[in-house]
Amino acid sequence: MHNIKLTIEFDGAGFFGWQYQPDRKTVQGELQIALEKLVQKPVKAYGCSRTDASVSAHNYVANFYTQSKLGIERFRRALNYHLPKEIYIKSAELVDLLFHARYNAKSKIYTYRIIRGQSPLRHARAWELREAVDARRINKALKLFVGRKDFQPFCLTRNISGICTLFRLELSETEDEISILIQGDRFLYKMVRRIIGAVVTCGTGRITLADIKAALAGEKHRSYRTAPSSGLILDSVQY
Amino acid sequence: MHNIKLTIEFDGAGFFGWQYQPDRKTVQGELQIALEKLVQKPVKAYGCSRTDASVSAHNYVANFYTQSKLGIERFRRALNYHLPKEIYIKSAELVDLLFHARYNAKSKIYTYRIIRGQSPLRHARAWELREAVDARRINKALKLFVGRKDFQPFCLTRNISGICTLFRLELSETEDEISILIQGDRFLYKMVRRIIGAVVTCGTGRITLADIKAALAGEKHRSYRTAPSSGLILDSVQY
Repeated sequence: MHNIKLTIEFDGAGFFGWQYQPDRKTVQGELQIALEKLVQKPVKAYGCSRTDASVSAHNYVANFYTQSKLGIERFRRALNYHLPKEIYIKSAELVDLLFHARYNAKSKIYTYRIIRGQSPLRHARAWELREAVDARRINKALKLFVGRKDFQPFCLTRNISGICTLFRLELSETEDEISILIQGDRFLYKMVRRIIGAVVTCGTGRITLADIKAALAGEKHRSYRTAPSSGLILDSVQY
Repeated sequence: MHNIKLTIEFDGAGFFGWQYQPDRKTVQGELQIALEKLVQKPVKAYGCSRTDASVSAHNYVANFYTQSKLGIERFRRALNYHLPKEIYIKSAELVDLLFHARYNAKSKIYTYRIIRGQSPLRHARAWELREAVDARRINKALKLFVGRKDFQPFCLTRNISGICTLFRLELSETEDEISILIQGDRFLYKMVRRIIGAVVTCGTGRITLADIKAALAGEKHRSYRTAPSSGLILDSVQY
């Protein structure tokens, strides 16, 4: 038995996220169809995380088990041949049988892109923000999220622990773009988009740093907007 | 009478190029529809050049005449309101009545993007090249095109002068991308895409620098491939 780790780039625009759903186009679904064509029987692919509909990835990681004797590089090429153009296997490698894309992940990096104003050439992968925002204020708000905290107020799931550790939240800026990097050990449903929604709302001056502090402390708070999925990309996974 | 110069970003993917065609979606067509909505009568927009179907632009320039008394920034905003999301007016300015977007252009800069291999997140704006190419050889081939020459062998029009001046042809490279910048005083139909087709064919080793020299000298030559329009972007116009 071989355990094969895949690094995958995908354009999420036409997909209902990673996770298999019976009647919808998902990345896991398409990958499993391609794998089945190659090995002639059903194969389960384990992904590093779920992703929201429309979210893309530069280096998503998945693994699967197979007894196929096809060489690893030929396997990668054959898989790309069977996959739709929106999904591309950048690399394939043999890994230890104990490796699991999700359970072994130490952290993940997401990036979120915001454009000041409009840009027809970039809007499919960004949040076009029409309001004026202060990037320095966004950066100050981001710093409040660093560390081991209960992120329940910034996610949509209510019945599991909200304790996560965020290692880095970094803002960088070019002429008309703001890019935010978030690295954490795990992420809850819609957590990144809700954090971005909150810090941008702070950047526009409509809420204060104190409001965010209070929400993180579990105090009663109104729910901030959720940033659109178009701006979110899973950048990489660390093992 | 006012003469208004527009700087326009557009995503060309869904358009049959700039130039108005009665039954097709074109950038000029959409712009004129939006202008007519604003000033309540037909307006002719003059563009800096035609573009091939699917070609995009970062800073396309057009101008039009109007007697409208709407302030220039309000005009720009109202125009964006009426335009489809694929076309965005980045700036509008009042210019001399003699200014003409096409006739006054001193030069234009195009960029062409090539990806080594595949990339779902970038393929809509690039040529995904599966063959191995030598970027240094492409760069050498590019240098042959600099200067005032007859580019007839590298375009599709046969009944007009092929004399153009190319000022710069520059290659830059990142990890898996090759980007080529071409600046010239004017460009003939499909000229950029045919030059790129030739230099890439040279980069793969299937033709030699001598073959390109001979073609530029007007000697008989086979026609090289035309690079796909997806990789081409009109970057800017110099006046």
